[in-house]
Amino acid sequence: MVQMWEEIWEQPAVLESCITLNSGVIGEVVKAIKAREIDLIYIAARGTSDHAAVYGKYIFEYTLGIPVALAAPSIVTMYSQDLKLKNCLVIGISQSGKAADVIEVINTGKRSGAVTVAITNDPASPLARAGQFHLDCHAGLEKSVAATKTFSAEMMALAQLAAAWSGDPAMAGELASVPQKLLPLRDEAEVIAAKAERYRFMDECFVLARGINYAISLEAALKIQETSYVRAKAFATSDFQHGPIAMVESAIPILIFAPQGPSQADMREIIAKLTQSQVELIIVSNSPDLLAMGQSAFTIPDTGNDVISPFFNMMVAQMFACKLSLVKGYDPDKPRRLSKVTITR
Amino acid sequence: MVQMWEEIWEQPAVLESCITLNSGVIGEVVKAIKAREIDLIYIAARGTSDHAAVYGKYIFEYTLGIPVALAAPSIVTMYSQDLKLKNCLVIGISQSGKAADVIEVINTGKRSGAVTVAITNDPASPLARAGQFHLDCHAGLEKSVAATKTFSAEMMALAQLAAAWSGDPAMAGELASVPQKLLPLRDEAEVIAAKAERYRFMDECFVLARGINYAISLEAALKIQETSYVRAKAFATSDFQHGPIAMVESAIPILIFAPQGPSQADMREIIAKLTQSQVELIIVSNSPDLLAMGQSAFTIPDTGNDVISPFFNMMVAQMFACKLSLVKGYDPDKPRRLSKVTITR
Repeated sequence: MVQMWEEIWEQPAVLESCITLNSGVIGEVVKAIKAREIDLIYIAARGTSDHAAVYGKYIFEYTLGIPVALAAPSIVTMYSQDLKLKNCLVIGISQSGKAADVIEVINTGKRSGAVTVAITNDPASPLARAGQFHLDCHAGLEKSVAATKTFSAEMMALAQLAAAWSGDPAMAGELASVPQKLLPLRDEAEVIAAKAERYRFMDECFVLARGINYAISLEAALKIQETSYVRAKAFATSDFQHGPIAMVESAIPILIFAPQGPSQADMREIIAKLTQSQVELIIVSNSPDLLAMGQSAFTIPDTGNDVISPFFNMMVAQMFACKLSLVKGYDPDKPRRLSKVTITR
Repeated sequence: MVQMWEEIWEQPAVLESCITLNSGVIGEVVKAIKAREIDLIYIAARGTSDHAAVYGKYIFEYTLGIPVALAAPSIVTMYSQDLKLKNCLVIGISQSGKAADVIEVINTGKRSGAVTVAITNDPASPLARAGQFHLDCHAGLEKSVAATKTFSAEMMALAQLAAAWSGDPAMAGELASVPQKLLPLRDEAEVIAAKAERYRFMDECFVLARGINYAISLEAALKIQETSYVRAKAFATSDFQHGPIAMVESAIPILIFAPQGPSQADMREIIAKLTQSQVELIIVSNSPDLLAMGQSAFTIPDTGNDVISPFFNMMVAQMFACKLSLVKGYDPDKPRRLSKVTITR
């Protein structure tokens, strides 16, 4: 049994639990936030959780217009500098809740008088206890080293907080629709499994997206790196054009997330440009004309905007990484050199 | 004549000019900042300038403890969301001063009532005119597509502002020493040119650093990508251990920045770990024992702390990228698919 695959498919139920079980605490967090002036959100995380933090940056700035900074924890740990985070919401994210450097950022927030929130998958963990509030992933034990269900739960917790804070019932409704809308991806699983064969000898790839799905390009690249040892490099298309595009070669496939929504015009442009360079494209989209331009094409459900498209793109990326690992003869649950909990300071 | 090489070696003089000629404006910026409450610095940039922004994040947080957020300009341009940046210093960086999305971030800052500063190499550019203040790179025309002297000038402008704001004369003195301390790297140029031969058939590499030199690992990777089409991927060592380390293979060299200072203990640890995996290491350091552990070793001058070590690491990286490009038979001044000014929205 492949644990990673099982856990990928636990996500609809996990997200359902997240939505239901966190709503109480989220109400309390919003009350604490609204009782004072918050003009900055500061998020600390590492690895996969840091990609959830990138989603958080976009979702908070997009829905609330409040600026979001992603922490460089070494400022606090290595350079021993306290940060001035008085009017701040400080969020620390770690699946295990054991990330020492993330806990230190929460602590500097507390010393400043910030509101602090921990997001973990273990309410008994040190990070969960360090935060003034705790949002639980409610994901059950995650056994695979490659995190999947905790990543989507972390994204959901951040999005729910943004929705509650902004008081936008339409957004809350959209988020509530995600678990059910993930289910039809079961059909896509077979397409993905069959197509993974084609990439048996892929050593490298690029992963591109724009806007909020940049978070997913980072996470997709990491999943491919850790399960299949393919050197996958993620770029926001806007940055890709500032230099990295010089590296494009026909032997290096490009995985592209191009969902309907505000970012699609840009993605359409880069797809057209890359098609001229005879590059192999793996396209994840819900637009048939764009899907038709890929050597491989993975279909996601319709998404009105970019609040929820990351959840579908993510699930496709996770399935692809898992199947690719198997096709290459690896064990996606036990990547070499990695352990489930990595503690950096 | 290789323009890139010429421009690399203009840097001591350019930085000298920066230090002298920007001090007046920096005094005015500090006065404007101190006349009000600033509790966040928000920096927008793309490509190489964005790597200067990463240096800026570390240098401001390290010297002032004020949190720094790096902009995702698409929030303003693509998602049309205004940001609430009232108590903010907003900095926009662009060599050409033409970056449309960076200008939009400055504009949202102005609408919020923020203090705004533009850093460009062209005082007549739209970005320079959009900012309330302008710090000039004073770099003269940069002809090579691969930016070098404007990158170090952007870093210097940010560091000078941090030094003046914090009122730290020791830091100002250290920065003032950089131009002269870059000169001995002339001797290292020959070592780098000779060693570049060894990497004629390198297709990929990893670039690692910790703390503030993470900015340099990003910029080193970009220089190698654009001039030599090598798929170079940068990581903070702390993040590298959270997954990417699984990709390590003996055929992929790792370029490591390990200067004296607070980050060196961590770098020593990862070097020891990688040495066990029989990986080829290219080590940039000022510690003989670490240099001895690399198949290639590039020496930088002594650096007391991490405020100035990035300038030396950067210059070594630029020289290496330039020589590597030539060894591979490319023209570093005219990378394929790139033009000097890239405008993204």
